[in-house]
Amino acid sequence: MILALAGGVGGAKLADGLAQILSPDELTIVVNTGDDFEHLGLNISPDLDTVMYTLAGLNNVEQGWGLAGETWSFMAATKRLGGETWFNLGDQDVATHVERTRRLRAGESLSAITGDLCRKLGIRHRVAPMTDDIVRTMVETDGGTLPFQDYFVRLACKPVLKRLEFAGADSARPTPAFLEALRSPATEAVVICPSNPFLSVLPILSLPGIKQALAERQAPVVAVSPIVGGQAVKGPAAKIMRELGMEVSPAAVAAFYGELLDGLVIDRADEALAEGWHGPAIHITDTIMRDRNDKATLAAETLRFAAALEKRA
Amino acid sequence: MILALAGGVGGAKLADGLAQILSPDELTIVVNTGDDFEHLGLNISPDLDTVMYTLAGLNNVEQGWGLAGETWSFMAATKRLGGETWFNLGDQDVATHVERTRRLRAGESLSAITGDLCRKLGIRHRVAPMTDDIVRTMVETDGGTLPFQDYFVRLACKPVLKRLEFAGADSARPTPAFLEALRSPATEAVVICPSNPFLSVLPILSLPGIKQALAERQAPVVAVSPIVGGQAVKGPAAKIMRELGMEVSPAAVAAFYGELLDGLVIDRADEALAEGWHGPAIHITDTIMRDRNDKATLAAETLRFAAALEKRA
Repeated sequence: MILALAGGVGGAKLADGLAQILSPDELTIVVNTGDDFEHLGLNISPDLDTVMYTLAGLNNVEQGWGLAGETWSFMAATKRLGGETWFNLGDQDVATHVERTRRLRAGESLSAITGDLCRKLGIRHRVAPMTDDIVRTMVETDGGTLPFQDYFVRLACKPVLKRLEFAGADSARPTPAFLEALRSPATEAVVICPSNPFLSVLPILSLPGIKQALAERQAPVVAVSPIVGGQAVKGPAAKIMRELGMEVSPAAVAAFYGELLDGLVIDRADEALAEGWHGPAIHITDTIMRDRNDKATLAAETLRFAAALEKRA
Repeated sequence: MILALAGGVGGAKLADGLAQILSPDELTIVVNTGDDFEHLGLNISPDLDTVMYTLAGLNNVEQGWGLAGETWSFMAATKRLGGETWFNLGDQDVATHVERTRRLRAGESLSAITGDLCRKLGIRHRVAPMTDDIVRTMVETDGGTLPFQDYFVRLACKPVLKRLEFAGADSARPTPAFLEALRSPATEAVVICPSNPFLSVLPILSLPGIKQALAERQAPVVAVSPIVGGQAVKGPAAKIMRELGMEVSPAAVAAFYGELLDGLVIDRADEALAEGWHGPAIHITDTIMRDRNDKATLAAETLRFAAALEKRA
């Protein structure tokens, strides 16, 4: 059993790689919900959807987010009605949000809804939100505190990030699937996918009991660095690291995760770091996932790396 | 001031004709909401939307309902997610329902929302729902009692209609705009548009106080017959009349409205009825509205007819 922690696009890619090489009963993918928000009255879970669409093979590869073959009539009509248009919602995507909203309002858990949507899309591996409770990432910036999507999408990450707060995290319960995978003796490794450590992974780690459960782990915890060659592969991770006074390098990623981490997979672009490396074990390989095959290869290498750590423990 | 009562497509056409020839402060269009329902968690008001889209010039003329240039990705994605697909919702149309749903949930009245959506679409005439309260047309059929849209769309009006019930009508309050237009001494005529008398007009007439207010009217009430040459121009009106044991003719429409009506506009196809006619005054003209000009012409003739009745009273 492998437990993968994932956020947006990079996380979804490695999760997809893991799903390619593991059978459905060998993998639980736990996804950040700190990015979730209510918009136009709809409950939107961007990271869950990115993972779901990617695993279903429905993701828009060219655009980097959303669904393939998407159309945009809903957005144009919303604009005509004077509605908010800063968060782009494709017509197919809206169907996901409408269905999720309906079922949440009817009292179903986000876990149950996510499981069912995944089944409908032919996904056989378990995808679970980190919690069924409401956690909202709030971004403290030089221009005040912003709800996550205002910072991330509306303002395109332009404000300088000073601090993150995960509103509701203190009292949120991790989902049963998450706790089960975390506690099961069958879990052989925890994989932190190459998602934004601050925006995607930290909310997951902020839930009550998670850091402690990982500290008491039997299974090794390995991360894949989302920082390659001094840059984030995608998104604002590098900008945030600079704003927080951190070096933009896999070493800073390792330092951020600290004691939590047994191993870090870094890209060949950063192999010079191996010399004089302090911190968890490292594995150097190609980490840029351009296609389906890249994802499976990186997933397999990451698991082999974790298994070797396990043997050493 | 003219008060028009309207339902679906035929009603929207004449309402559009009236809007062409009257200034915004001379017309109030009151629309049936008995067809409204909640579907996929969205509040849908089909008759309001038909009137709104028609007056905005956004209606799909070829299809006969919905919006021009509509796309259908939402529906395809809903199907993929295992959602209900028997009620077709176009991608642009969904934006209307999402916006209406959000604002109803936030506590705004359907009147206020409708007024604002109309303004956003450039409609300057007043369009008001018959009530801001919930009224639901229930169709008693040979196969049991059905919510309206189940009867109308899902089962394509196939069950034999035995009786109609307007759940909630007894305690629903007509909207302020409706009451104002009904009671104003400035109202020169009430026009019952060529909508289905049973499914579109009767719910409006079933609201508390409406029949009495119309009975005490100063202004004449004129209807345009939706039955032409022994057939309904559109929809199931003729089928329903047969099922209720009525003749399918403008005479039966007149009998159905009874004392309420001062005048009925009938089509040239039915001019033979003029001989031996019992009932309200009749005006014979072309009532089939094929284009924008037909609508304005019929609206103008209907108002001239009403004005002549008024003089006679």
